[in-house]
Amino acid sequence: AVCKRELRTGKHVFTDARERETAIATLSGWAEAGEGRDAISKSFCFSDFNQAFAFMTRAALVAEKMDHHPEWFNVYNRVDVTLSTHDLGGLSRKDIRLAQRLDAFAKDAPEALP
Amino acid sequence: AVCKRELRTGKHVFTDARERETAIATLSGWAEAGEGRDAISKSFCFSDFNQAFAFMTRAALVAEKMDHHPEWFNVYNRVDVTLSTHDLGGLSRKDIRLAQRLDAFAKDAPEALP
Amino acid sequence: AVCKRELRTGKHVFTDARERETAIATLSGWAEAGEGRDAISKSFCFSDFNQAFAFMTRAALVAEKMDHHPEWFNVYNRVDVTLSTHDLGGLSRKDIRLAQRLDAFAKDAPEALP
Amino acid sequence: AVCKRELRTGKHVFTDARERETAIATLSGWAEAGEGRDAISKSFCFSDFNQAFAFMTRAALVAEKMDHHPEWFNVYNRVDVTLSTHDLGGLSRKDIRLAQRLDAFAKDAPEALP
Repeated sequence: AVCKRELRTGKHVFTDARERETAIATLSGWAEAGEGRDAISKSFCFSDFNQAFAFMTRAALVAEKMDHHPEWFNVYNRVDVTLSTHDLGGLSRKDIRLAQRLDAFAKDAPEALP
Repeated sequence: AVCKRELRTGKHVFTDARERETAIATLSGWAEAGEGRDAISKSFCFSDFNQAFAFMTRAALVAEKMDHHPEWFNVYNRVDVTLSTHDLGGLSRKDIRLAQRLDAFAKDAPEALP
Repeated sequence: AVCKRELRTGKHVFTDARERETAIATLSGWAEAGEGRDAISKSFCFSDFNQAFAFMTRAALVAEKMDHHPEWFNVYNRVDVTLSTHDLGGLSRKDIRLAQRLDAFAKDAPEALP
Repeated sequence: AVCKRELRTGKHVFTDARERETAIATLSGWAEAGEGRDAISKSFCFSDFNQAFAFMTRAALVAEKMDHHPEWFNVYNRVDVTLSTHDLGGLSRKDIRLAQRLDAFAKDAPEALP
């Protein structure tokens, strides 16, 4: 409860459902998060912890630069990511941009399992 | 399901309940994980993502060296950690040692919230 | 030679020698880099590699966010940093701001040697 | 001067010049460091700082696990690495093993320049 989250502005909200749909379609393997949340999720699987944590480091550098941070869970070679823009009440263009970067980083990890 | 986990040997199993109890008492703020799991959990709260991810990096270096990795969830300045030794079927001495290291790293983050 | 460096704008140039002097005075332990370069340097010494690399990770997150990167050398617990704004031909306000952040990160590492 | 370095044992010393030569030949792009040092060096060039620092993170995780750390310099997308086993007075089998890991990590960065 004490853990605060950063605030963000409104220009990244999707203007209509079609734009939202098209944006999600640019991604690879992301699905609606479910549990009544307006968010997308993907599970990344790498060859080992070393490769998984390097992926997280790349993501962290981008997230900090965008001032937009993932919710993520890691154990060993697995990284489960959920993206949503908390102060906009749901999925936004920022999430799509971050997801695109994460997909690109995972592609750089050739040993990663599908 | 494809994500494999490393195997570990049996010398780290607790020999009795008293040793287990004493070991957990050396830690600060860790609790039984619940949900029917033999594991311990703690939620760390830092001043921002920068400090939280530096903590994760220190933990990652130690985890890789011990060949014993946490289950952890992060969003912004919060890091929730669960420790259990999967192939030993529950909490072991390795988890206590890793938890002690994590407590020490969090102490090095003076701005961290209680 | 192939390694390119990012370009930066000119608003961060010091307007006079007094501003430059005052800015450097806000820092702790930084010195002119010498070797005919308009740059500042500092050597950080930590308790071990773990702490040194966590410092580097914090610095990396800030550097990427500022789009302003250090020149740095590391071996084990030592991190030597040189700051200069290459495309502005020398020390700028960006370097001072990055140096201030690095000083703050090192202060969070209480075991660090003086 | 205050910065201490870890101590290492002697079993990693090369037994003869031929073994040393063969070992270096398994590497890609490493050269004798020169300056009268018994060490090897290589300059890695990545697409940007993000990719360079992810490489450094992978290397850091391996180095810490091996208890054998590189001397390295970074600026933006460039990482210059020098490997030598200080307490053995020069290049050892540990350096070759670390160099092989670094080569593999760089191969995982497909955008990296040659």
